[in-house]
Amino acid sequence: MSPKITGELLKHLRQVMKNCKYFSEPIQAYIIPSGDAHQSEYIAPCDCRREFICGFNGSAGTAIVTEQHAAMWTDGRYFLQASQQMDNNWTLMKMGLKETPSQEDWLISVLPENSKVGVDPWIIAADQWKNMSKALSSAGHSLVAVQDNMIDVVWTDRPERPSTPLRTLGLEYTGMSWQDKITTLRAKMTERKISWFVATALDEIAWLFNLRGADIEYNPVFFAYSIIGMNTIRLFVDLKRLSHPTLRDHLQLDSPSRPELSIQTFPYESVYTELQAICAALSPKDKVWICEKASCALTQVIPKSHKAPIPYTPLCLAKAVKNATEIQGMKMAHVRIKDAAALCEQFAWLEKEIPKGTVTEISAADKAEELRSQQKDFVGLSFPTISSVGPNGAIIHYRPLPETNRTLTTNEIYLIDSGAQYVDGTTDVTRTMHFGTPSAFEKECFTNVLKGHIAVSAAIFPNGTKGHLLDSFARAALWESGLDYLHGTGHGVGCFLNVHEGPCGISYKTFADEPLEAGMIVSDEPGYYEDGCFGIRLENVVLVVPANPKYNYRNRGSLTFEPLTLVPIQVKMMNTELLTQKERDWVNEYHRKCREVVGAELERQDKKEALEWLIRETQPVV
Amino acid sequence: MSPKITGELLKHLRQVMKNCKYFSEPIQAYIIPSGDAHQSEYIAPCDCRREFICGFNGSAGTAIVTEQHAAMWTDGRYFLQASQQMDNNWTLMKMGLKETPSQEDWLISVLPENSKVGVDPWIIAADQWKNMSKALSSAGHSLVAVQDNMIDVVWTDRPERPSTPLRTLGLEYTGMSWQDKITTLRAKMTERKISWFVATALDEIAWLFNLRGADIEYNPVFFAYSIIGMNTIRLFVDLKRLSHPTLRDHLQLDSPSRPELSIQTFPYESVYTELQAICAALSPKDKVWICEKASCALTQVIPKSHKAPIPYTPLCLAKAVKNATEIQGMKMAHVRIKDAAALCEQFAWLEKEIPKGTVTEISAADKAEELRSQQKDFVGLSFPTISSVGPNGAIIHYRPLPETNRTLTTNEIYLIDSGAQYVDGTTDVTRTMHFGTPSAFEKECFTNVLKGHIAVSAAIFPNGTKGHLLDSFARAALWESGLDYLHGTGHGVGCFLNVHEGPCGISYKTFADEPLEAGMIVSDEPGYYEDGCFGIRLENVVLVVPANPKYNYRNRGSLTFEPLTLVPIQVKMMNTELLTQKERDWVNEYHRKCREVVGAELERQDKKEALEWLIRETQPVV
Repeated sequence: MSPKITGELLKHLRQVMKNCKYFSEPIQAYIIPSGDAHQSEYIAPCDCRREFICGFNGSAGTAIVTEQHAAMWTDGRYFLQASQQMDNNWTLMKMGLKETPSQEDWLISVLPENSKVGVDPWIIAADQWKNMSKALSSAGHSLVAVQDNMIDVVWTDRPERPSTPLRTLGLEYTGMSWQDKITTLRAKMTERKISWFVATALDEIAWLFNLRGADIEYNPVFFAYSIIGMNTIRLFVDLKRLSHPTLRDHLQLDSPSRPELSIQTFPYESVYTELQAICAALSPKDKVWICEKASCALTQVIPKSHKAPIPYTPLCLAKAVKNATEIQGMKMAHVRIKDAAALCEQFAWLEKEIPKGTVTEISAADKAEELRSQQKDFVGLSFPTISSVGPNGAIIHYRPLPETNRTLTTNEIYLIDSGAQYVDGTTDVTRTMHFGTPSAFEKECFTNVLKGHIAVSAAIFPNGTKGHLLDSFARAALWESGLDYLHGTGHGVGCFLNVHEGPCGISYKTFADEPLEAGMIVSDEPGYYEDGCFGIRLENVVLVVPANPKYNYRNRGSLTFEPLTLVPIQVKMMNTELLTQKERDWVNEYHRKCREVVGAELERQDKKEALEWLIRETQPVV
Repeated sequence: MSPKITGELLKHLRQVMKNCKYFSEPIQAYIIPSGDAHQSEYIAPCDCRREFICGFNGSAGTAIVTEQHAAMWTDGRYFLQASQQMDNNWTLMKMGLKETPSQEDWLISVLPENSKVGVDPWIIAADQWKNMSKALSSAGHSLVAVQDNMIDVVWTDRPERPSTPLRTLGLEYTGMSWQDKITTLRAKMTERKISWFVATALDEIAWLFNLRGADIEYNPVFFAYSIIGMNTIRLFVDLKRLSHPTLRDHLQLDSPSRPELSIQTFPYESVYTELQAICAALSPKDKVWICEKASCALTQVIPKSHKAPIPYTPLCLAKAVKNATEIQGMKMAHVRIKDAAALCEQFAWLEKEIPKGTVTEISAADKAEELRSQQKDFVGLSFPTISSVGPNGAIIHYRPLPETNRTLTTNEIYLIDSGAQYVDGTTDVTRTMHFGTPSAFEKECFTNVLKGHIAVSAAIFPNGTKGHLLDSFARAALWESGLDYLHGTGHGVGCFLNVHEGPCGISYKTFADEPLEAGMIVSDEPGYYEDGCFGIRLENVVLVVPANPKYNYRNRGSLTFEPLTLVPIQVKMMNTELLTQKERDWVNEYHRKCREVVGAELERQDKKEALEWLIRETQPVV
């Protein structure tokens, strides 16, 4: 990995920063956040501005360029990578270390008095803007919204914004028409006395209209905004995409059934002026819902007295609670003829091939993709496959590259975290295996991780419980041995949508954590990472379902989880003596279900080797 | 319980609200919060203004009086009590119910346009003021600070503010001189570039100066403020209290050892003008620390550019981490010749007396107080004893009154939650017992509570863990049966100070929750309450201590708890079949320690019956 040479680029950018064509006065610093205008987790190539300016291509990081300095903040996952990808024009700011200043403190320490700090208001969230602006103001500086993106000015070969064909999803996949989703949304708006709702998150818009795109790799979304009033629906999208008759029919563009369900379409870029027009015509009591995480640009269009910011939108919550059709789709995606079957094939194949010394992290990942792609309704991967051997497994967000690629052997632990998008659902599963003889320490760690996985999966808890209250269950066994893992335990999973979604999850972090409800789908993925040696993670996607314990305190009702992922957990890695009888029962029942459901499918598909492997790997433990 | 007649009082208050002697324009509503000027949990009689105006004397509640209405907000613990104590001039606002409006929403719904809402800025915390003010402003009203308290104007026989004698604590109790505490505080101020610190919490001031008072029942504190600069120390207190030579000597008032440790004393009331004078002389870079929970009155004296509000103060954190002397004192208070011994006597006595049918909730509580008061260094109770039989036990904050007083029998569960202040420490312990034959359901519930108690007490967790991450451990067994309890699991405990203190605790609520550190002392008190039948709670005070598990991930170190309370847990109430071997081992080891430590003490004190009881109650379970 050689660093990007940025000397000329920075020179050019600094010239632009002094150029009053873009702003009334020169700016002394320019902030380049990671995100796009929709605060997406994964972004399209045209939005990789921070990577373009500094060379670092990790998923999280903010660059700031002043007249004298250039600095980039990222977190512990990326210290090594960032230091390798950036040249010495850049200072790496290691977030989380005591001595590392915050962006605000650093700016205040290096800026001359009364400085102006610029940022593109489209790619900074409203809440971040507020904090940054406050800190700078208190030190005599000011944060300035620069409408033209300064990186785009110097980025001569910037890719086009993608505009992939849109796919319509029928009721057989969504379980609810977009018309009904709009009606439900409006009912919530009425309940809260809200007149308008501005949708900016791409997965929420895709979910609302039962449409999917492919504008961002791994995420079946498309660039769009939507503004919903009590009688109008505005959709902002590249209009060229709406020409296909199936699509026009799906959206009833030419013959709406009811006037209040008629969609007005506008070019993607016109959301700003259209929102301005809406806001200019507001009655005194009108309130506009917009997510606190939406862009500063759109948020600031809404006058303060009309703005009703929310930590997450009603679409976010509605999308998180899957209906029966979506749950069925997710089960199909995880099990039947799909992920589980593909992975059983994969592991049977690995067992045979590894001793030959020809399988590498990359070829194993490719094989998994190949096997998945043969399954029905496969669309693509849901995130880059983490395929890691030995010490690479300890790098939590590892992605094999030619220069790091290790060969799988019978001496080292193999961790594969992978998933796919199918038309009926999104999968995400991690298994950790040893194809030779694991050491006692490796088994001990694996077993503690398994105990944590089971503790969450089998937990019974009252309705209304937030996911963060379950996080410690996943850690208790590790903690007892003095071990831990430095990531959350679970995230929400979309249904043929983003593999990470809010507003629920299982983490020691408690922000934007809505109570778990039946129908929500999250991952359960504790791990343990021994730096320089190995990584262990066990991940199932689980569905929140009602539980029926003996009592029902205050009629609150109880919940538990049902695993959707049905892939055997390697018994060879377990020290079964460390398991309680209850835990052994859980393992056996889980494996029985894997064998029953996936076994039947493998038989139907006539995958003999995979079936043999499945049967062998699901023998009861005692 | 008959309600307080408030018609005339309210008429008088409403006249005062229109009287421009107190403010430039009449006010349309007046808010009467619960607290005192120090945001104390327990308050002195002179500060019981909300009780005075509406009759409700629970610990939490806010009254609001408008020209037409009078309403009082309180939480679920107090719905019944408040409805009995208030006459029909008052509307009870049941907090936590969906249909109950917030104070802000209610005010907005009943006030005429452009109203002024008054509040005494001394008894509303700065953060509450901010929220209320924002909400009212957005609806066109304004919140007004009324310096004269309107209740005091109509409260003709209001008690005097207490001014009890001050007690000095030597190094043998505190382990650290007040001079060293000041020096440590100043070091933290230097580290954070803070010039001044305003101390407003009574327990922090008592702790800082190694002084104790008795101004508030159960809390050995005294009314005072303190402002600490880098070279000066100002103490605001009724000056008459400082005349005793021992005290003058302790504070070095007449011959300070070093000029920067010289204490300037001022009358209690002059804190406002003195803080104004300090703020008038601030240099541009000077910052002033004040707790976000401090009174609005004092907080607003500090200019915004100089104000550095903090969620809890450095004193609060320093006080929470007990030093070796304090830990030793707390152990003594809990065990030797004190709480445990007194309670063993109490339970042996109960066992003998209950069958006679002469023991009531009140007489049992009195007996416990009598036995404690005979112990060395007893000062008083640390909170009102909760002594409850059968259905009364299900009222979480029950306090026996003549009209509710039940007789202890061999048919109902008895719950006693009690504690005392000793010069060397503060105790708080809850035991639940049956003196006849408990039902299977009672035993099942008790055992699930015990499992939760043990899960927290025996938990091993990494350094830096916040208490809220342990809360679910206490609930897991109950949840599995569909049961729960609607309160937190633990609170910080002061050392001869308030029985409830921050900034650590164990609760599903996550606010102001600092990581647990070795030396902190918290309670571990899960429970189960079957409305109308019984209440169960098991509470030990536990000390955070280093743990030594097998591994030490990233050298973070691990922590666990050591019980300070050593009072047997009734085996008769346990269904030992529901306990795991590990849990049985914990019970046996705990009882072995009770017998060893408390038994030796009872022997020394020649308390034969109590010793016999102790030995019988600590037989190993199998």
